[in-house]
Amino acid sequence: MNVAIIGAGNVGWHLAQALQAAGHTVTGVYSRTAPPREELAAQLKSAQPLSSLGLQSINADVVLVAVPDAAIAAVAAALRVQPGTVVAHTSGSQPLSILAAVQDAQTGVFYPLQTFSKAKPVAFKQVPILLEATDQAALQRLQELATSISHTVEVVPSGARKHLHLSAVFACNFTNHLLGISRQLLQEANLPQHLLQPLIQETIAKAMQHDPYTVQTGPAIRRDQNVIEEHLHMLQQHPRLQKLYRLLTQSIQAAPEGR
Amino acid sequence: MNVAIIGAGNVGWHLAQALQAAGHTVTGVYSRTAPPREELAAQLKSAQPLSSLGLQSINADVVLVAVPDAAIAAVAAALRVQPGTVVAHTSGSQPLSILAAVQDAQTGVFYPLQTFSKAKPVAFKQVPILLEATDQAALQRLQELATSISHTVEVVPSGARKHLHLSAVFACNFTNHLLGISRQLLQEANLPQHLLQPLIQETIAKAMQHDPYTVQTGPAIRRDQNVIEEHLHMLQQHPRLQKLYRLLTQSIQAAPEGR
Repeated sequence: MNVAIIGAGNVGWHLAQALQAAGHTVTGVYSRTAPPREELAAQLKSAQPLSSLGLQSINADVVLVAVPDAAIAAVAAALRVQPGTVVAHTSGSQPLSILAAVQDAQTGVFYPLQTFSKAKPVAFKQVPILLEATDQAALQRLQELATSISHTVEVVPSGARKHLHLSAVFACNFTNHLLGISRQLLQEANLPQHLLQPLIQETIAKAMQHDPYTVQTGPAIRRDQNVIEEHLHMLQQHPRLQKLYRLLTQSIQAAPEGR
Repeated sequence: MNVAIIGAGNVGWHLAQALQAAGHTVTGVYSRTAPPREELAAQLKSAQPLSSLGLQSINADVVLVAVPDAAIAAVAAALRVQPGTVVAHTSGSQPLSILAAVQDAQTGVFYPLQTFSKAKPVAFKQVPILLEATDQAALQRLQELATSISHTVEVVPSGARKHLHLSAVFACNFTNHLLGISRQLLQEANLPQHLLQPLIQETIAKAMQHDPYTVQTGPAIRRDQNVIEEHLHMLQQHPRLQKLYRLLTQSIQAAPEGR
């Protein structure tokens, strides 16, 4: 397929590489400023760097909009494409309807569920791609594109995608914060960071293989009040962490499948 | 070395196998009830199953006490060993002093920092072992034993070990709970569990390579109040999770190195 990409940030960058590696042709790359589009286009075989959202002269079966959430609506309003193109955004948290203003095209969502940074290569085959589209023909075209670069392609409508995002906030954003707290506490006690890494890795591996509620360990689930009180005492210089410790302990003890 | 092991649970089981594989001789295995000690002794080349804590006739350079925390003090009081033996417990949360009652022996701590289950093999070389002892000679003997089965051996006194444990509660016990919440939310939205796994794995990998505070992502750190309000609304049937969401969001925004 011929694909044009709007946005030359982390997502656009990795998508362009993965699509070309799968045999597709990236025909154009747009970004607001020149350096990113020039740099990305130079990495690709036959992509034109585009300085305008008027893409009427660009061959594209699919246009992927990989810009920050806050910029999607403005791109949708300004974009011009050849009739019959499918325009899809790549955001996990924005509804399909945010593309309603796009003219002469079917619209969809093409959301790669992963965190990207330019410096780090991505095994795209392992990245789930979640799709949605306004009609069946557009959905089929996105499915064909998605399955050519990923093993895991699912149709997930906007409503369910919001729940997925909420779930990811707990599993990823909040988890990262707890790992940050843990690292801070190690630092304050002059303990080397690497000591906990095997335990963290094993904990995550176990949580992936089981329902985490059923493999919960630690003082909260054991209701070991001596250790809990001692930990709260050790955190007395950190009232914010004390509050978190207390609430997470209560939550573990109240969880539906807590033993 | 000759090693006797008190306790035939998960820790005793894996320690015995790792020590034998490293060329040591496990000479005796004690447990309160017969089946575990018989089963473990049968797996080992030359271990006697022991039904009493009188080990005066058992050759042991080191006796490792791998029983639940609450049972260590009672074992220490009842244990009898040959003079010159080093007796070490394997607990992360108990001080060295809990072995003060042991007669005719130097005492220590030999703490493998990992979560064990019998069914799952352990790459012991990757498991950090934290040591402490009442005197230098005993410490040296424990160091020799530990370095023969693990690449990572550190001397960590009881006070620092408590901080390590607190840090592990945040990094492992609390993290596991958040992964449980995430799974519950996916289930309630009828979304497949596997969709989030690549994102979780990448999040953890990133948190290991950086200070997690500096790679924090998500609505909290972006101060994206629209998304935060929407998530709180979606959690209205779960007041406990709403409270956790709010407090974790505040904590991310207040963290010392939050951007």
